[in-house]
Amino acid sequence: MGKVICVGLGPGDPELMSVRADRILRGARHVAYFCKRGARGQARRIVEGMLPAAAVEHAMEYPVTVEIPVSDPEYNRLLAAFYEDWATRLADLAMGAEVVVLCEGDPFFYGSFMHLHSRLQGRAEIEIVPGITGMSGCWTQTGQPITWGDDVLTVAMATLPEAEITRRARDTDALVVMKIGRNLEKLKRALAAAGTLERAWLIERGTMPGQRVARLAEVAEAPYFSLAVVHGQGRRP
Amino acid sequence: MGKVICVGLGPGDPELMSVRADRILRGARHVAYFCKRGARGQARRIVEGMLPAAAVEHAMEYPVTVEIPVSDPEYNRLLAAFYEDWATRLADLAMGAEVVVLCEGDPFFYGSFMHLHSRLQGRAEIEIVPGITGMSGCWTQTGQPITWGDDVLTVAMATLPEAEITRRARDTDALVVMKIGRNLEKLKRALAAAGTLERAWLIERGTMPGQRVARLAEVAEAPYFSLAVVHGQGRRP
Repeated sequence: MGKVICVGLGPGDPELMSVRADRILRGARHVAYFCKRGARGQARRIVEGMLPAAAVEHAMEYPVTVEIPVSDPEYNRLLAAFYEDWATRLADLAMGAEVVVLCEGDPFFYGSFMHLHSRLQGRAEIEIVPGITGMSGCWTQTGQPITWGDDVLTVAMATLPEAEITRRARDTDALVVMKIGRNLEKLKRALAAAGTLERAWLIERGTMPGQRVARLAEVAEAPYFSLAVVHGQGRRP
Repeated sequence: MGKVICVGLGPGDPELMSVRADRILRGARHVAYFCKRGARGQARRIVEGMLPAAAVEHAMEYPVTVEIPVSDPEYNRLLAAFYEDWATRLADLAMGAEVVVLCEGDPFFYGSFMHLHSRLQGRAEIEIVPGITGMSGCWTQTGQPITWGDDVLTVAMATLPEAEITRRARDTDALVVMKIGRNLEKLKRALAAAGTLERAWLIERGTMPGQRVARLAEVAEAPYFSLAVVHGQGRRP
């Protein structure tokens, strides 16, 4: 069996990747990364200028992103076939030389690599290098701690039903909301109902060029690389 | 005003600190860190061998850790005076040369530096370098993703009342519990009541020498550097 290393790249600023990630990337022979068809993808952009000239790159282009609803069985079938195909290709490649898979943030925290990870079991040795999560990068940029003392933190997706987001926001001290995009107005209504909209921030492209930190209530559009936070207010001597 | 940089050191393995943290530490002139009286502290141990020989070290020894209950007003008074004293000392030191404060994990995620951060406002320029959280380091060591698809993640402290832990465990997809220590048996009962004890793991000294990953149900003692996780089971094409 060969070896596949999934490297967490952190929130976006290349200096925020780990010393181990940096070392592995600079010695990489095969580098694979997920991206939309015809796009380079955020993970590949983060490592620009770091890969050896001789490294062979493998763009793993999603067969579908938003063209089919996630609830459609066809979406599931296409994605499953795509992951299975790449698991086989990476396992084969790894027999020749270590394969490095790029992953934004922290691989085991909502990362796409996990779909290869489950399919590579028994077919390759796997190493995961954790990374700074996008949410850590983002809340750091707000200039305020996310959690204090015994605060409870909830991480939820804006894809949840509106009433469910409101319920979660009411029942936590600190909140992080990801996957906002088209769900921005729903999220604003949900947090307004919970009474936390006035304390909510949106961080766009956190730690990257073009970063913006704004009050969520004042934001009219949220790109894919954005997340919302409501800071905890716990014990502070 | 001088500058104070709080550097997140990550979960414990020195190779898991960021490239920026590594660079700042190797050029540090003043290095401050929290520790118990007479102990070196985990943060200082992580950077062993990295600091310049000429760096001046400042051990910020807690006046109290577990000798007085957190609920006692005296605890609060002693801690507040301690943080105020060090905020003044670091602001003064920073007038001469940048001061680097060490912090395990990610500084704005349950870190002690936030108590200095609030007191240093207007007295020093402050930079925070995010780090890989202890929980990312730990869940990576379990070899399983913590969250999939639209899973909700809850982070809670084992210091919460037993019924509250049970309620939180029932009402989430993925769970991380920190500050276990003396609350281990309470936590086990709480998760058993929620029906998630059989899926819970305890990670001790994650990413550090002496690391141990065990089923929570089989653990009899949890040291300070340990946390529990219950993995999410969300959508997976």
